[in-house]
Amino acid sequence: MARRPPTGHDVARHAGVSQPTVSRALRDDPSVALATRHAVREAAEALGYVPSQRGRSLSTRQTGQVGVVISDLANPFYLEILDAVHDALGAAGRRMLVLTPDEDDALLARRLLDGALDGAILSTTLLESPLPGELARRSFPFVLLNRGVDGAPGDVVVTDNVAGGRLAARAFLEAGHRDIAAVFGPPDTSTGRDREAGFRALMAEAAIELPDGRVRRGPFDFTVGYGAARELRSSGATGLFCANDVLAIGAYNGLRSLGVRIPEDVSLVGVDDIAIASWEVFRLTTVRQDIEDMVRRGVELLLERVAQPDGPPRHVVLEPALVRRATLAPPGRRALDEEV
Amino acid sequence: MARRPPTGHDVARHAGVSQPTVSRALRDDPSVALATRHAVREAAEALGYVPSQRGRSLSTRQTGQVGVVISDLANPFYLEILDAVHDALGAAGRRMLVLTPDEDDALLARRLLDGALDGAILSTTLLESPLPGELARRSFPFVLLNRGVDGAPGDVVVTDNVAGGRLAARAFLEAGHRDIAAVFGPPDTSTGRDREAGFRALMAEAAIELPDGRVRRGPFDFTVGYGAARELRSSGATGLFCANDVLAIGAYNGLRSLGVRIPEDVSLVGVDDIAIASWEVFRLTTVRQDIEDMVRRGVELLLERVAQPDGPPRHVVLEPALVRRATLAPPGRRALDEEV
Repeated sequence: MARRPPTGHDVARHAGVSQPTVSRALRDDPSVALATRHAVREAAEALGYVPSQRGRSLSTRQTGQVGVVISDLANPFYLEILDAVHDALGAAGRRMLVLTPDEDDALLARRLLDGALDGAILSTTLLESPLPGELARRSFPFVLLNRGVDGAPGDVVVTDNVAGGRLAARAFLEAGHRDIAAVFGPPDTSTGRDREAGFRALMAEAAIELPDGRVRRGPFDFTVGYGAARELRSSGATGLFCANDVLAIGAYNGLRSLGVRIPEDVSLVGVDDIAIASWEVFRLTTVRQDIEDMVRRGVELLLERVAQPDGPPRHVVLEPALVRRATLAPPGRRALDEEV
Repeated sequence: MARRPPTGHDVARHAGVSQPTVSRALRDDPSVALATRHAVREAAEALGYVPSQRGRSLSTRQTGQVGVVISDLANPFYLEILDAVHDALGAAGRRMLVLTPDEDDALLARRLLDGALDGAILSTTLLESPLPGELARRSFPFVLLNRGVDGAPGDVVVTDNVAGGRLAARAFLEAGHRDIAAVFGPPDTSTGRDREAGFRALMAEAAIELPDGRVRRGPFDFTVGYGAARELRSSGATGLFCANDVLAIGAYNGLRSLGVRIPEDVSLVGVDDIAIASWEVFRLTTVRQDIEDMVRRGVELLLERVAQPDGPPRHVVLEPALVRRATLAPPGRRALDEEV
């Protein structure tokens, strides 16, 4: 027979305080003395007590605030995510609170669970992050948006990034490129790992090599794309894939600084379709993620989960699409579909 | 003799609850029943009770969290502010919580005062906002960053935007432009109002006209700059001032879409010096605000205020500087200092 799980009463008795004090202490309410908070936390840990978030689904207990966790503030992709989340939550009568942990912020779970939030949207989760498991164990409503983790223990909305990588590779091959280089993203993110896997898989199927000398890898960062593109210039590649638009825009500027013509000398394809990609000066060919749709679905799943914490995790996978603009053309040529 | 100000005890007696319940009710602690929270709030309002934030300056009461209020998420300038604030707070052992109110969010003061924050950085305050006054009355530590209000009742760190507008106007005149157009920002912000005032003042001193037909005005938005520049193309102006870089980058792309050469056909000057301004494809001449210095000073003032809420407001005004790149040249010429 299973042992009865410990309750707040058990913790209260163990710590010698009242039960309401236990709840307040565990969410670090400053009206509880610091020593008491420590004592309660120790008692809870000794007993293996996990506070339930269930009671908070009563409408009077909801705070109307939803947290968005974003660690990569220098990336305009996340500005577009934030903007879309803000609007989607506003339309649902909720307010957004943005948390910007450093990637190793061990306090993040406690910040999310402190009682101020009805749920959270995690948008920059690393593949090995313990956070989703921790939140799931505490029945705290959350959704993984944009980046997933393997075997996610909660709701997920992502784009099929393997398919995205394949789309980019196919676009280069169909345009006639055989000498191809790539700037991939961080392998500890699902977006970085999966775009690389898809790109390499299609290249392998077409028996086109991607030698290590034509590959760079780094954070999704303008300067990484800028520097990598300048280095790869001498590799003889006529096509350069960048695993997101920020890298691609960096690469565009890096190539431009060397006087390289795009696409006559080098074709360039990114991923995401951020607003900057469509600017007149770039007209970047890219693999589009539908940010608005992704955010709309993510907010929907989260609010359903807040209202009804039970039920199995739901995984939504959106299809990417190639957006043809002016930076991809057959080797040595201008883009066929260029409108300028 | 002055009437004694009402205390938490008075509110507790009036509402028929204990004093700790008053504090918890006023910060909307969900452990207090909703009806009780209402009753306490009514009693506090009836008595004119203003909860003091003083006690929170004891180190054990600090939460380690600082709020940043930003309403204009689509603007990359604020991404740079957020990034710098995140780093500056991190270096001081604090964490950042981002609040993104709609501009008329009447609940913002309550969200700031709910006990989760040691203080706040307000970066998108409108000139007529009641928020700074409200926070000052409650002795809640805050700093106005980037945008000020007239007679600010608290600490302020801004750039001298009148001087910034003058710098831009002088740059056009010294390059020999006499036919000048402008896209100004929103007049209900100190940045929009002051840059326009400075620009107009210097033009007036030089007896150069700025006819209404050569002026557009709108939010600090890419599409506003894009559309305004296309409209102003037929005005015959050889120089176009944009009141921030986002407008200027929009204008650059709008002019490019018409085949206009920059600076040979039209010279362009922005304000801010965001990262995008220095990209190879733009090399925008602009009036620089030192974002890092502004943020460093703002965080310093705020943390001093958290530690010591007393003392008069301090107003820091930083000097802007013209950054010469490739988009300003004498009418009909390339930039003299262009390095490409």
